[in-house]
Amino acid sequence: MPDYDVLCIGNAIVDIIAQCDEAFLEINGIIKGAMNLIDTRRAELLYSRMGPAIEASGGSAGNTAAGVASFGGRAAFFGKVSNDALGEIYAHDIHAQGVAFDTRPLKGEPPTARSMIFVTPDGERSMNTYLGACVELGPEDVEADKASGAKVTYFEGYLWDPPRAKEAIRQTAKLAHEAGREVSMTLSDSFCVDRYRDEFLELMRSGTVDIVFANSHEIKSLYQTKSFDEALAQIRKDCKIAAVTRSEKGSVIVRGDETVVIEATAIKELVDTTGAGDLYAAGFLHGYTQGRNLKTCGDLGSLAAGLVIQQIGPRPRQNLRREAEGAGLL
Amino acid sequence: MPDYDVLCIGNAIVDIIAQCDEAFLEINGIIKGAMNLIDTRRAELLYSRMGPAIEASGGSAGNTAAGVASFGGRAAFFGKVSNDALGEIYAHDIHAQGVAFDTRPLKGEPPTARSMIFVTPDGERSMNTYLGACVELGPEDVEADKASGAKVTYFEGYLWDPPRAKEAIRQTAKLAHEAGREVSMTLSDSFCVDRYRDEFLELMRSGTVDIVFANSHEIKSLYQTKSFDEALAQIRKDCKIAAVTRSEKGSVIVRGDETVVIEATAIKELVDTTGAGDLYAAGFLHGYTQGRNLKTCGDLGSLAAGLVIQQIGPRPRQNLRREAEGAGLL
Repeated sequence: MPDYDVLCIGNAIVDIIAQCDEAFLEINGIIKGAMNLIDTRRAELLYSRMGPAIEASGGSAGNTAAGVASFGGRAAFFGKVSNDALGEIYAHDIHAQGVAFDTRPLKGEPPTARSMIFVTPDGERSMNTYLGACVELGPEDVEADKASGAKVTYFEGYLWDPPRAKEAIRQTAKLAHEAGREVSMTLSDSFCVDRYRDEFLELMRSGTVDIVFANSHEIKSLYQTKSFDEALAQIRKDCKIAAVTRSEKGSVIVRGDETVVIEATAIKELVDTTGAGDLYAAGFLHGYTQGRNLKTCGDLGSLAAGLVIQQIGPRPRQNLRREAEGAGLL
Repeated sequence: MPDYDVLCIGNAIVDIIAQCDEAFLEINGIIKGAMNLIDTRRAELLYSRMGPAIEASGGSAGNTAAGVASFGGRAAFFGKVSNDALGEIYAHDIHAQGVAFDTRPLKGEPPTARSMIFVTPDGERSMNTYLGACVELGPEDVEADKASGAKVTYFEGYLWDPPRAKEAIRQTAKLAHEAGREVSMTLSDSFCVDRYRDEFLELMRSGTVDIVFANSHEIKSLYQTKSFDEALAQIRKDCKIAAVTRSEKGSVIVRGDETVVIEATAIKELVDTTGAGDLYAAGFLHGYTQGRNLKTCGDLGSLAAGLVIQQIGPRPRQNLRREAEGAGLL
C-alpha cells in the first residue's frame, strides 16, 4: 500500500488570470469573490472581453496538494483533465511539484477545465469556471490503494457540481475510513454551500467527513445565520475538527470544546487572494499529518495563505518547507 | 491606409516560466542568459525536468508591440501561431492589449511556438525556444497596408532563425521605406548575432535598417571586440540611431556625433529579466513615434524595462501610459 500524507480530490482546472476594475464585474454580471459556473458560450464571451492574461495550474484541491508537497508532505491527487494542451500543462505542474497524480485523462472532448479569474484592485478574485473534462470524474477514477493509504483524504465541496464526482468521494471516504484514515472537506464557496447545504450537512453528521475547512461566509451560509459565533457553535457539534478562516482576522479552529485562535500572518501587499483557502488547508493538513498540535497546524496554514496572496496565481512559488523552517514552525 | 505608430514583427511565442537553480542550467547544458534553440525532443526532455511553471504570451517583438500599446501607441504585429490552444492564448493576449494582429494562423502542425524560460535566483532568464509554427512566417504574411502605414517597423534579429521570415522582413522594409517610414531592429541575442553577423551588418550598412537596438554583449559580438567603446564607435557609423542597453548601467543612445546617456530606473527587487530589452524598445519607440527627444525616448525605455524586471513574465501588468504620466515623461 502506498503511503501518503494527504490525498486531495478536486476539479483539475487551469486558471486564466487577468486584472479588471470593479465596473467590469458589474457590467458582466460576475459575482465578486465567488466561483461562478459558466458554459462554453459564456466562456467565449468573457474571454473575448478579458484583458491580457497569464495561465497557471489551479483548482482548489489541486492547489492544496501542491502546497502539501511544497511543505515536504507526501501528496496525491485525483482529478480529471483531457488529453489536450491545458491538460498536459496541468499534469506537468502537479507532477513537477512532486504530487502523485495518475487519474486517467479523458480522451477528447470536453476539454480540460479552465477558470477565468478576474482580480480587482483590492486583490479579490472572482472566478468563472468552465468545468469541461471535470464532469467525467467518477468512481472508476478512485485508486483504492491511495484512498486507503493516505492519512487524510481531502476533497472540495465544488465536486458536488459535476454529476458523478460525489460517487467517487463517497467511495474514497469509505475506503479511507475502513483503513482507519480520516476524511476532510472544504465547503469551497458560500454559493456552493447554498446549492448543496443538506448534502454537506449530511456528510458531516454521518461522519463521512471528519475535518471541515471553511471561511466565515461559508459556515454562515451552511447554517443560514448571520452570526459567525452561532455558526461556529453549530459546526463544533457537526464534525470532529473545523478550521474556519476569517481573512485578515486569521482563523479559528474548533475541536469539541477546544478552541484555538490563529492570527493571520503580516503581509506587505495583498496582490491576489486566489488560493488563500487552499493553501491554508495545505499548511493545516501538513501539520496535522505530521502530528503537530492544532496551533501549529493553523500557523502553517496562515503562513502558506499569507504567501500565496502576495503573488499572482494560486500556488506559491516559494518552497513552503523552507519558509516554515525559517518561521520556526517546522 | 491604416495609421500605426509601430509595426512589430517577430516570433510569436508562449513563454513557459519556472524558477531553477544555477546547477540546473549546467546539468542541462543551457547557456545562461541566452536564447537556446531546441527541437521537439529536447523540448520534451526539458519540460519533463522543469519545475511547476506559469504560461504567458511572450516573443520579443510581440512584447514590444504589447508595450507600445500599453503606452497608448498604435501598435501592429506580424507573427505566426498555429490554430491550437496556445495560439488562441497568444492571439487573445495581444488583441486584448489593443495590438492589431491579423497574421493568418497556421492550420495544424507544427504547433504554436513555446519557450521554456528558466529564471535563476539572480533574476537572469535563460530561454529554450521551440520555434514551431514560427518557421512558416513568410513574405505572404506581409500586410502591405500596415508595412506602409506604420511610422516605424521594428523586427527582431531572431527572425533570421526561421527559414523565410527574412524575406518577409526585406519586403516589409522596402514597403516602409517607399512610404517614407523608418525601419528598426533588435540584435536580439549575442549568439544570434554570432550566427548572422554579416547579414545584420549588411542590413544596417545598406540602409535597410535605420535604428538598431542592442545590449552591450550584442554590439560587442557584432563587431567582434571586447571593448564596448569601440563597438559603440563602430555602430555609430553603421546606422542612423543606435540605442544600446547596459543592464543596471542604463543605456546609451547614439545618433551621428550625438550621444545621450540614460540612467536605469531604480528598482526595489530584480525578479525576472525577461522582456527587459523588449520593453526598453517599446518605451523608446513610443517616445520616438510621438516625436519626443532621444533623452525622453530613452527614459521611457528605462521606465518600462524597470517595471517588467520586477515581475515574473515578459509583459508588464501596469498600464505604461499611466506609469509614464506619473513619472512626468508623457
